[in-house]
Amino acid sequence: MSGSTLGTLFCVTNFGESHGPAIGCVIDGCPPGMALSEADIQHDLDRRRPGTSRHVTQRNEPDAVEILSGVYEGKTTGTPIALLIRNQDQRSKDYGEIALQFRPGHADYTYWHKYGLRDPRGGGRSSARLTAPTVAAGAVAKKWLREKFGTQFRACMVQLGELAIPFESWEHVAHNPFFAPVADVARYEAYMDELRKAHDSCGARIRVQASGVPVGLGEPLYDKLDADIARVMMGLNAVKGVEIGAGFASVAQRGTTHGDALTPGGFAGNNAGGILGGISSGQDIEVGIAIKPTSSIISPRESIDIHGRPVQVVTKGRHDPCVGIRAAPIAEALLALVVMDHALRHRAQCGDVAQTVAPIAAHVEREK
Amino acid sequence: MSGSTLGTLFCVTNFGESHGPAIGCVIDGCPPGMALSEADIQHDLDRRRPGTSRHVTQRNEPDAVEILSGVYEGKTTGTPIALLIRNQDQRSKDYGEIALQFRPGHADYTYWHKYGLRDPRGGGRSSARLTAPTVAAGAVAKKWLREKFGTQFRACMVQLGELAIPFESWEHVAHNPFFAPVADVARYEAYMDELRKAHDSCGARIRVQASGVPVGLGEPLYDKLDADIARVMMGLNAVKGVEIGAGFASVAQRGTTHGDALTPGGFAGNNAGGILGGISSGQDIEVGIAIKPTSSIISPRESIDIHGRPVQVVTKGRHDPCVGIRAAPIAEALLALVVMDHALRHRAQCGDVAQTVAPIAAHVEREK
Amino acid sequence: MSGSTLGTLFCVTNFGESHGPAIGCVIDGCPPGMALSEADIQHDLDRRRPGTSRHVTQRNEPDAVEILSGVYEGKTTGTPIALLIRNQDQRSKDYGEIALQFRPGHADYTYWHKYGLRDPRGGGRSSARLTAPTVAAGAVAKKWLREKFGTQFRACMVQLGELAIPFESWEHVAHNPFFAPVADVARYEAYMDELRKAHDSCGARIRVQASGVPVGLGEPLYDKLDADIARVMMGLNAVKGVEIGAGFASVAQRGTTHGDALTPGGFAGNNAGGILGGISSGQDIEVGIAIKPTSSIISPRESIDIHGRPVQVVTKGRHDPCVGIRAAPIAEALLALVVMDHALRHRAQCGDVAQTVAPIAAHVEREK
Amino acid sequence: MSGSTLGTLFCVTNFGESHGPAIGCVIDGCPPGMALSEADIQHDLDRRRPGTSRHVTQRNEPDAVEILSGVYEGKTTGTPIALLIRNQDQRSKDYGEIALQFRPGHADYTYWHKYGLRDPRGGGRSSARLTAPTVAAGAVAKKWLREKFGTQFRACMVQLGELAIPFESWEHVAHNPFFAPVADVARYEAYMDELRKAHDSCGARIRVQASGVPVGLGEPLYDKLDADIARVMMGLNAVKGVEIGAGFASVAQRGTTHGDALTPGGFAGNNAGGILGGISSGQDIEVGIAIKPTSSIISPRESIDIHGRPVQVVTKGRHDPCVGIRAAPIAEALLALVVMDHALRHRAQCGDVAQTVAPIAAHVEREK
Repeated sequence: MSGSTLGTLFCVTNFGESHGPAIGCVIDGCPPGMALSEADIQHDLDRRRPGTSRHVTQRNEPDAVEILSGVYEGKTTGTPIALLIRNQDQRSKDYGEIALQFRPGHADYTYWHKYGLRDPRGGGRSSARLTAPTVAAGAVAKKWLREKFGTQFRACMVQLGELAIPFESWEHVAHNPFFAPVADVARYEAYMDELRKAHDSCGARIRVQASGVPVGLGEPLYDKLDADIARVMMGLNAVKGVEIGAGFASVAQRGTTHGDALTPGGFAGNNAGGILGGISSGQDIEVGIAIKPTSSIISPRESIDIHGRPVQVVTKGRHDPCVGIRAAPIAEALLALVVMDHALRHRAQCGDVAQTVAPIAAHVEREK
Repeated sequence: MSGSTLGTLFCVTNFGESHGPAIGCVIDGCPPGMALSEADIQHDLDRRRPGTSRHVTQRNEPDAVEILSGVYEGKTTGTPIALLIRNQDQRSKDYGEIALQFRPGHADYTYWHKYGLRDPRGGGRSSARLTAPTVAAGAVAKKWLREKFGTQFRACMVQLGELAIPFESWEHVAHNPFFAPVADVARYEAYMDELRKAHDSCGARIRVQASGVPVGLGEPLYDKLDADIARVMMGLNAVKGVEIGAGFASVAQRGTTHGDALTPGGFAGNNAGGILGGISSGQDIEVGIAIKPTSSIISPRESIDIHGRPVQVVTKGRHDPCVGIRAAPIAEALLALVVMDHALRHRAQCGDVAQTVAPIAAHVEREK
Repeated sequence: MSGSTLGTLFCVTNFGESHGPAIGCVIDGCPPGMALSEADIQHDLDRRRPGTSRHVTQRNEPDAVEILSGVYEGKTTGTPIALLIRNQDQRSKDYGEIALQFRPGHADYTYWHKYGLRDPRGGGRSSARLTAPTVAAGAVAKKWLREKFGTQFRACMVQLGELAIPFESWEHVAHNPFFAPVADVARYEAYMDELRKAHDSCGARIRVQASGVPVGLGEPLYDKLDADIARVMMGLNAVKGVEIGAGFASVAQRGTTHGDALTPGGFAGNNAGGILGGISSGQDIEVGIAIKPTSSIISPRESIDIHGRPVQVVTKGRHDPCVGIRAAPIAEALLALVVMDHALRHRAQCGDVAQTVAPIAAHVEREK
Repeated sequence: MSGSTLGTLFCVTNFGESHGPAIGCVIDGCPPGMALSEADIQHDLDRRRPGTSRHVTQRNEPDAVEILSGVYEGKTTGTPIALLIRNQDQRSKDYGEIALQFRPGHADYTYWHKYGLRDPRGGGRSSARLTAPTVAAGAVAKKWLREKFGTQFRACMVQLGELAIPFESWEHVAHNPFFAPVADVARYEAYMDELRKAHDSCGARIRVQASGVPVGLGEPLYDKLDADIARVMMGLNAVKGVEIGAGFASVAQRGTTHGDALTPGGFAGNNAGGILGGISSGQDIEVGIAIKPTSSIISPRESIDIHGRPVQVVTKGRHDPCVGIRAAPIAEALLALVVMDHALRHRAQCGDVAQTVAPIAAHVEREK
């Protein structure tokens, strides 16, 4: 299976480069009979797209999606759904200089050595722009899971650079450019303004959640649900860490504390993050990801060129000073794609399993 | 592809249960012509096997491996290498009671609901015992990578419960039961003794490293090297978090700090953890994993039975109070399997790439 | 995915060599809850095993299968089912001479050049002995399909060398060593006796049928049901041709003749062989395969050795003068594995499809 | 892996429907650094495209291909190559009536029952129009194999309906609309003219050949080279039979005849069709395929509608009276895709194999 295809049964094949004529994906394996239109997909693309606030790249891309196949009279036919997004606002001349240089912390160096050549315009294939088709595919998965199981996906920023962001409510997330779960983001706006002036960039921490996931998803030994979640999250541009449930904090916990007690009314906690033994428990799936600071910054950096000679690299072009800001809808999409694939895989093997007892209710205190 | 097979080209298919007649794996895709004997594999199995100190489960398993196929006159033939390990010290009667109950924090609940039945003896398929075939397969990968590229894998414990373990030297790791990089482990011995008396368990943090990895391994967009590393590590029993390089600490870093400068003599740092854009840079690959406390503890826990009725669960049988103690060789094996698979994938696609310049030397300060 | 694994969801990983210690397979993805014992598998192994008549190889292998995992208290658990068959009657000394020579029409030459070395004992990995694990896995698939859908698989010989075998009845197949659908096989016995005396070998043509296959199995564009059937059949040792339904005869048919008319009571013919557009129609699946004459014969043949020097090759050892004789149960197993895999794949994607009308009855005249 | 993706390492994901806005494919895994332009692909598309003679469908499609990604400054970058072909000449109104009816011998019936709905316009996804992206992908594979190994692919028609076509020379193939290896095609023109008048259709037999294939390609046990060839050929629309080398004729051969003798100068024959034990021998790969008569014919046929009621079906629209006529370039492409994928797979596993002796020369009498 090729490196640009995600999923075993709900398969997304991604293509395109930052400054090529178009980006897109092919979704193969979508169940037939689901109502689907461009509008169903566009909403999440709009949440992700650049140029929507002063804190993100000013590249102006409408990211309008066209469905090329797989939908007939407004319904999925079960055949591949090809999605096309034409690039509009390429400014390739910005990249002339760095074509022969390697930005510290960037894929420039490794692409060059792997392939022997690279498309330097806007990062080429390594650009975060390629998350747009992933988001589009995720919107299809989300719709099916919502209609089938009532599954909901949401994500928010919980740390911006050095600043922890307290969790107030999911309702705030849609009302600020940071996807922050707080009412007042003035502090983060000021932080970002200062960062831009300093010609620097910062990291972020994102929380991703899926609620209403049925019990039983995940395929031990190697295709556990948490394994596949970790894979897609770590594969997202700039991510350097992934945790599920209590995550790294569980190292210092005792077994008597960590293991979530079960009661007839539900689980009494969610240190597990909704996954036990690599299989969903019916609780909320809780994921945390760490995003590194953008490597494309205006501040000059010590580096080398393709001939191994020392150079000072200055990245022009338009870049996000914190790629974490637009990461929330992408992380939701990735989680949805994993859950979708495993929902189909589980049905394939275990479609006849009749539970003698129903799963217990999920943990109740969800609004945290 | 099934959930018990790992890898695209170097494929490991794992089978067995904790208390069944045997466990093992089939390795398909190993390059032909490599010298291989049981002894080459047994060494890592012995490092992982139970019963070697008072701090781990007292189950006595020699874990003697038999090569059933794929080797002729001491060399791999390129055909599947089947490895068999007979289980010896099963005590299934220990598990009668919990067959109908769900341990908090354990896969009992999810296996039951996924499959409609489960093998409760020793955790059945969800047991950490199934890491033995993974270690065996990893030994084969390690050998090939060492002979081909000089790649070395090593892992150590860097935190035990609340106790951080300072890094002194890799040389200490082989000389204490904790795989701790320190000369004196008395403090950790005392910690574990107290924990056992308290009938409790604790977590651990493990550092895993690969040095001598060639530049260019990893298949963007979705099969990035770090993505696949995160997948196998999170798929390891009890792991709740994975980070690469600076990991979660990178959230609070600035771009001017995080991006490792390049010089003609090598990289000036390794915040990247040896991977840029999902592709190996030739630096050491650095991985950190968080392991939760064991869920099988003697202390009584609140739970339910398969009928949804409240019960007190007490886990008898023999269990590791800290599964992290034996995790180091397993994590090495997992990393080796990922690197091996990507080495073959890279050669397949890019075997003709002629570098106009050699990769720069890797970061020199390796002994940290 | 590796070359020794068959299937996307019902995955069979085969291992072993003709004269190694053991052969076997791992089945991953079997639905849980199905009753399964060694006896369920042994029946088909016994139909395939050598030494049962004077017309096949006299190697004496009981082919007793051991279930190593995946079954608990007599039921499949949904975890990998490992099956082990110990080789018993190896006589490796027979193969000393041909280790450095290439038999005409044999895999000797290509294995040597592909891998740089080969296990020459009994053909090593290229031996038809490796069909035993496939038959074992097929028995598991057959059982599930029979219990779920009432699917039945059967195969018979329809040509032996130059002799066409008329179809009398499926009932005769189990009562003669040729799997021939005729009451009197004296003619074929005499043919084989003469062939053996002539130190020669012959080919055969096998018919394979699946009845009771549900409508809807197959995944266009590339994983059509007939495509996957052709793949497994052509992959069987010595097979040089595969056809579905009217097969090669359809070349000379007209469209007005070939297309099977549909009536409210069923299809009026079965030129399609049960598959339309790569998807099962509910009719009997009809497959024909051509098997070449065995290349391992005692008559001396012109060839070369590994140094490229001309030699006369005489194959000693024990061989089937017509490998087609034992092919019927193997072909059934292969067809069952394909149908099984597609049954799970279909359920995964289309499990919610509600037919507004039931499929029509399958073509009625089945006993042909 | 999804049903619309072909290949393990050189992966082609196909999308589109006959009358949707566009068709196309994504090629992932192409080696980097190969010169590639639309012109390299267009040539084969033009050989396959409709409307070029009176003997094929009169639908007028330029089939102009656009490269959307994966090529930078005229060279492949190693990232996915997306190819787009806009549909131009859809006449969907032709299909109103048969939307609710099932054509005998057509995928109408099975698509309806599999997916619960179908796109009836021009056969939707089941149309032979979807072979265009396959041909485009095949052109990329052909180019790489030609430049790397000198591999050549060609195909010709050897039977048209009842008429066998004698082999005169490969040179004639490009000079007549039938891809026939004969100088004078008047007889076949007359046959087709009569067939059209009779409102009927006919089958065809195609010979496909690859020369210059390196020795060693193919992955036993299940991914043998001939197995994968059979898979793609049988998966081609309307194909009902596939044979390699002597094919079905080998049934009546003796072992002393069938096995191609080896001499220091090469193989003395090619009954094997270039493949031994599922691995290429370096000889020409020879494949034969049987194509059934088109099911979409104007002559009225007995059938049923979606409610199971009897109807007379008359297929309007534009159709090929013999789909075999345009099959030659498609079959070449399919063979090229299989060889390409296996060339990469072989290099991955066996890239270090150093032959102590060179493979012998391939069989010399190639022009047959």
